[in-house]
Amino acid sequence: MPVEDAALFEMAQKLRRHCLESTAEAGSGHPTSCMSAADVVAALFFQEMRFDPGDPSGKDADVFVLSKGHAAPLLWAALKEARAIDHDLATLRRFDSPLEGHPTPRVPWVRVATGSLGQGLSAAAGMAWARRLDKSGGRVYCLLGDGEVAEGAVWEAAQFASFYRLDNLCAIVDVNRLGQSGPTMYGHDTGAHEARLRAFGWEAVTIDGHDLAQLRVAFERARASAGRPFGIVARTLKGKGVSFLEDKEGWHGKPVKKGDELARAVAELGPTAVDLPVQPRRYSSPTPQRRSEPRVQPRYEPGQEVATREAYGTALAELARSCPQVVAIDGDTKNSTFSERFKDAAPERFVEAYIAEQNMVGAALGMSTEDKIPFASTFAAFFTRAYDFIRMAAYSRPAHLVLCGSHAGVSIGEDGPSQMALEDLAMMRAVLGATVLYPSDAVSAERLVELAARTPGIVYIRTSRPKARVLYANDETFALGGSKTLRSSARDQVTLVGAGITLHEALAAHDILAPQGIAARVIDLYSVEPVDAETLRRAAAETRGIVTVEDHGVNGGIGEAVAGALGGRARVEMLGVREIPRSGKPAELMKVCGISAESIVAAARRLV
Amino acid sequence: MPVEDAALFEMAQKLRRHCLESTAEAGSGHPTSCMSAADVVAALFFQEMRFDPGDPSGKDADVFVLSKGHAAPLLWAALKEARAIDHDLATLRRFDSPLEGHPTPRVPWVRVATGSLGQGLSAAAGMAWARRLDKSGGRVYCLLGDGEVAEGAVWEAAQFASFYRLDNLCAIVDVNRLGQSGPTMYGHDTGAHEARLRAFGWEAVTIDGHDLAQLRVAFERARASAGRPFGIVARTLKGKGVSFLEDKEGWHGKPVKKGDELARAVAELGPTAVDLPVQPRRYSSPTPQRRSEPRVQPRYEPGQEVATREAYGTALAELARSCPQVVAIDGDTKNSTFSERFKDAAPERFVEAYIAEQNMVGAALGMSTEDKIPFASTFAAFFTRAYDFIRMAAYSRPAHLVLCGSHAGVSIGEDGPSQMALEDLAMMRAVLGATVLYPSDAVSAERLVELAARTPGIVYIRTSRPKARVLYANDETFALGGSKTLRSSARDQVTLVGAGITLHEALAAHDILAPQGIAARVIDLYSVEPVDAETLRRAAAETRGIVTVEDHGVNGGIGEAVAGALGGRARVEMLGVREIPRSGKPAELMKVCGISAESIVAAARRLV
Repeated sequence: MPVEDAALFEMAQKLRRHCLESTAEAGSGHPTSCMSAADVVAALFFQEMRFDPGDPSGKDADVFVLSKGHAAPLLWAALKEARAIDHDLATLRRFDSPLEGHPTPRVPWVRVATGSLGQGLSAAAGMAWARRLDKSGGRVYCLLGDGEVAEGAVWEAAQFASFYRLDNLCAIVDVNRLGQSGPTMYGHDTGAHEARLRAFGWEAVTIDGHDLAQLRVAFERARASAGRPFGIVARTLKGKGVSFLEDKEGWHGKPVKKGDELARAVAELGPTAVDLPVQPRRYSSPTPQRRSEPRVQPRYEPGQEVATREAYGTALAELARSCPQVVAIDGDTKNSTFSERFKDAAPERFVEAYIAEQNMVGAALGMSTEDKIPFASTFAAFFTRAYDFIRMAAYSRPAHLVLCGSHAGVSIGEDGPSQMALEDLAMMRAVLGATVLYPSDAVSAERLVELAARTPGIVYIRTSRPKARVLYANDETFALGGSKTLRSSARDQVTLVGAGITLHEALAAHDILAPQGIAARVIDLYSVEPVDAETLRRAAAETRGIVTVEDHGVNGGIGEAVAGALGGRARVEMLGVREIPRSGKPAELMKVCGISAESIVAAARRLV
Repeated sequence: MPVEDAALFEMAQKLRRHCLESTAEAGSGHPTSCMSAADVVAALFFQEMRFDPGDPSGKDADVFVLSKGHAAPLLWAALKEARAIDHDLATLRRFDSPLEGHPTPRVPWVRVATGSLGQGLSAAAGMAWARRLDKSGGRVYCLLGDGEVAEGAVWEAAQFASFYRLDNLCAIVDVNRLGQSGPTMYGHDTGAHEARLRAFGWEAVTIDGHDLAQLRVAFERARASAGRPFGIVARTLKGKGVSFLEDKEGWHGKPVKKGDELARAVAELGPTAVDLPVQPRRYSSPTPQRRSEPRVQPRYEPGQEVATREAYGTALAELARSCPQVVAIDGDTKNSTFSERFKDAAPERFVEAYIAEQNMVGAALGMSTEDKIPFASTFAAFFTRAYDFIRMAAYSRPAHLVLCGSHAGVSIGEDGPSQMALEDLAMMRAVLGATVLYPSDAVSAERLVELAARTPGIVYIRTSRPKARVLYANDETFALGGSKTLRSSARDQVTLVGAGITLHEALAAHDILAPQGIAARVIDLYSVEPVDAETLRRAAAETRGIVTVEDHGVNGGIGEAVAGALGGRARVEMLGVREIPRSGKPAELMKVCGISAESIVAAARRLV
C-alpha cells in the first residue's frame, strides 16, 4: 500500500472509531452505516475534495452532500478531522449540540437537511446545475446508500443530471447490502446498480469501496468524465472493520455498548493516531454574481380580467429581467403555470424539470444553496408529489425557495379531482415556518411574487386557473401577515373571509346581502400563513360572526386558520369542499361544493 | 394487412373519431394523447384482453389500468365499443356524467383513479401481486405515456414488479414524443426507454405502436414471458391519423373545433363503421377467497408499558391469522413499525416494498381492488413521500386501505426532525373522506386496528415510538368519531384534549391541577377525523375553555380540528410544535416544544 493510502486507511479507521464512540456515547445512531462508507469519505475529504476548512460557504470549492443522512456521525467525524468544525463529537444527538442525528444546516457545512432517504442527489444536481450556470469550478459529490436508491426520486435526479450533462457531479453508492430491516433489494449485485445508472445516462464504474487505490482511480475518472455525471458503485461491508459487526444483520441503527464492547470494537480498528490536512481549494474564483432587489410593477386596468396564474408569469418574467439571482424550474406545465414567460425572458436561468416534481423541488433546494432564488412551478395538486421534499427543504433552513401551485381548487372544472388540489393549503400550512400566499387578482399576484422573492424560507403561492377581475390599484402594497378589508362599515353584522377565487364570491355575496339589510365586511386573506390575527380579531369583535370560504377542503385550510387564530373569540362558519368533487363546469362545481356567493349568503344569514 | 388487422385498424380509427368528437363536444380534453394510443387500446380491448363486458369486477378476466389518465376519452370509447358501458360519449366531462376528464371509479371499470401521472403502474403491480397470491389467471395491462415515465414512482413500480417476478403484468409505454409543454426528455429515442426497463429487470421490446401485427406479436411475447414483467415500448405519433394534428406541437390538451375542423379531422380517418366483439374470458375461476370479520382481542395488564406501535404489530399479527383478506406491506421499517409480526404470522401475505413509499401505497391500492384489505406501514414522516398517491387513493373510492405511520412527533427524540412527522395529521385530515385514528395506549391501538380494518376508505393510524402506560381495559370499545372522557366531574373548569403521547401529559396535567383546585376534564381524541363534535361541544358548554395538545405542528392538527368543530363556541388554547425541533431526548423536546404537562397546566390556568 503506498504511504498515502496507508495514512488514508488509518484516517478511515479513525473515522470509524469516532462513529463507534460518538454513537455509543449517545446511546443511539447508525455506526455500521457509517463504517461501510468510511473509506469513501476519508478519500473524499482528505484526498479528492478541494475545500477550505475555514469557509463552509463552499464557494470556489468542492461540496459534499450526504444523502444517506443516517451516516451523520461519519460526516461530523470527517469535518472534525478536517478542522472544519470544533464541536465535541461526544455531544452527538444532544439537544445542546448542532451534531444532530441526521444532518441539518445547524452545522453550516450542511447545505440541505437529509435523513429522508433519496433526496440528496436532487439537491446535489441542483447545485451542479447552478455552478455550471455561474461558471464555478467546484465539483459536487453525493454519497448515497444502496437501500435509498430504491426511492424513485433518485432516478428522477439521475435522469435530470444526465439530461443536463452535469459532469461536475459525482455520486457514490455505498452498496453495503443491508438495509434497516433486512438485505436490500439487490444485495451485493453491484452490476444491477451500475446497469441502472448507465441506463439513466451516467458514466459508471464498480469498485471495492474499501480499496483506497480503486477509489482514487475512480475519482480521477469521475473528474475526467465529459458531458456525463459519474457514478461510483462501491461494494462495501456494513460495519466494516469490526469482526462482530461486519456484514452482520441485526446491527442497523444500533450502537455498540460503552465499555467492553466498544473497547473490543475500537481495538480491532488498530492505530488511529493519524492527522491529515485537506487539499486546498484550486478553483479560480468565478465572477461574483450580480444581485438586485426583487421588484415588480403591475400594469393593469381596473376591472380587467386576468388569471392570477398569468399575472404570476408576468411578474416572474419581470424578475427574470431584473434579478439575476432568480431562477425558475417547472415540471412540464410551463404553458399552464405561465412560468414559460420566465423562460422567454431568461432561457439560461430556466430549467425544464419534466414530470418529476420531487426532483424539481429537490433541485430547486440545491440551487438555493448556490445563492439563487428558485421559483418552482407546477399544478398545485402535483406539489403533493413532493411533500417530503418540501418538508425537508423547510428543515434545511435558511434555504429560500418559492413554490407556485396553479390550477387550485374545483374552479379548474372539467379536468376532475386529480388535477384540483384540495389539500395544498393544509399541506403547506403544516410545513413549519413556511409562508403561504394566495392572490385574488393580478395586482396582488404580482405583488406577492415580489414578496415571495424577498421572504426567507419556503414560500408557497397558490394561483387559480380562471380569469379574475382586477381588484387593486397597481400601487397597492401587500405585506407578510397582512390582509385587505375590501368592504366595511361601522354597522357590519358579519365578516366574510375569502382568498383567491372565493374572494370574488364573497364580494358578490356582500352585494346580495346589502339590499337585504345585512352589512358584510369582506376580507381578502392573501397571507394565509402567517395570518392577520389582529384584523380577524377586530372583525370578530365588531361583527356577529365570520364566514370563511375557500376553494379547498375544509380541514387545514383557511377556515381552520381563521378559527385557530381566533381561538374561540367568534363564531366561525367554514365553507369549503367537503365531498370528493367530479368533472363539471367551474361555476357548477363551486355551487355544488357550497363555496359560491349563494352559499356564503346563506351562511352569513345563519350568523346574523 | 390480414382481415383481422384491417378490422382492428378501423376500430382504432373509430376510437380516434370518438375521442375527437367527445372532446370537441366538451370543449376540452386531450384528443391527441388518445390518438397516439388508439391502436394499442384497440388491440388490447378487441384482440388481446379476455373479459366479460357485463362484469366490471375483473374476476377471472384481464384488467386494464390507464396510467396516462388524460387519455380518458380513449378508455371511455373502448369501453363503449366493447359494450361494457352505455353512457353517451358526448357527455364527456359533464357534471351529470361519470365520464370524467380523468378516469375515476364512478365508472366501475376504473379500479383506481388516474390523472396524476406515474401512478398506474404501482396499482397494476399491486393487482398482479394479489392475483398471483390468489392463483387468479387474469393478466394486468397498464398503459403509460412517455412523459410520465419521468416520474420516479414509475421506476419504484418497475423494480417492485421485477423483484417479485410479476410476469402477469404487461406495461405499454406510448412514446409519442410530445409532453404538455414541449418534447419529452427522450423524444422518440425508444432505445432509451427500452434500456431503462431492461436495467430495471424487465423483458422489453420496441415496436411501431401503430402496427397492429407488431402489437399482436408483442402481446404474445408478453404472455410467454416467464419470471419477468414485460414492457412494450411503442413508438407512436401524437394526434396520429389526422394530418394537422399528427406529431405537431401546440396540440396538447386541446380539442379540435366543432364544425369544419372536426369534420376535416374525421374525414381523414376514413371508414369507422366496424363493430367488433371482445374476446371471452378464458381463465378458470380461482378458488373463492375466504373472508372473515376483522377481530382482535387485546391482552394487557393495567399499567403495563407498551408502545402503540408494538400493539399495532400485535393486532396486525392477529388479523394475519384470522383474516385471509388482510395483507401487509412495509417500506424497510418492519422492525420499527412492528409490521414484521404480520410477516411472521403470514409471510405469504406480507410484502417488503423496500424504501419506496410511493409504490408501497400505490401497490397497496392495487391490492385493495383485488378484495384485499392492505395495511401499509412506515414511519409517519415518510408517508409525506406518498401524499400524491394517498390523495389519488382517496379519489379511487371505494378503495379501502389502511396506512399506519409510526414514530410520530418530537417524542421520537434523538433522530431529529427528518424522522419526526409533524405534518402527517394535517396531511391526512386534508384527504377528503379519510379517517384518522390516533391511539394512546396498547388497548386502543389494537382496537383501532380492528376498526380500521372495518372502516371503508382510506384510514390512517398514527402510532408513537415510546412506551406508554395501558389506560383501558381489554374489553373497552372504540367507535369511529368517538372519544373517551377519562377524567371528569360536575365542577370541571377546563377541558384538556390530547391523543397519543400527549394524552398521558394531559392526564399528568390533570393531576397537577387538581391539588391547585382546578378540576380538569380530560378527553382522549382517538378519532381525529371524524371528530367527536358532540362531546367537544358539551365540554365547551360545561367548562371555561379547551386546551388541545398534540405532538405535531399546530396548523392542521388536533387543535384546529377541535377549533373547527367548535366553530367559536369555546376558547381554545392550542399547544403543538411551532418551531423546527432538533435532536434531543424525548422528554426534553416535549418540554421545549410546549407540549408537556407543565405547558398544559400553564395553558389551563390561562383559561380558568
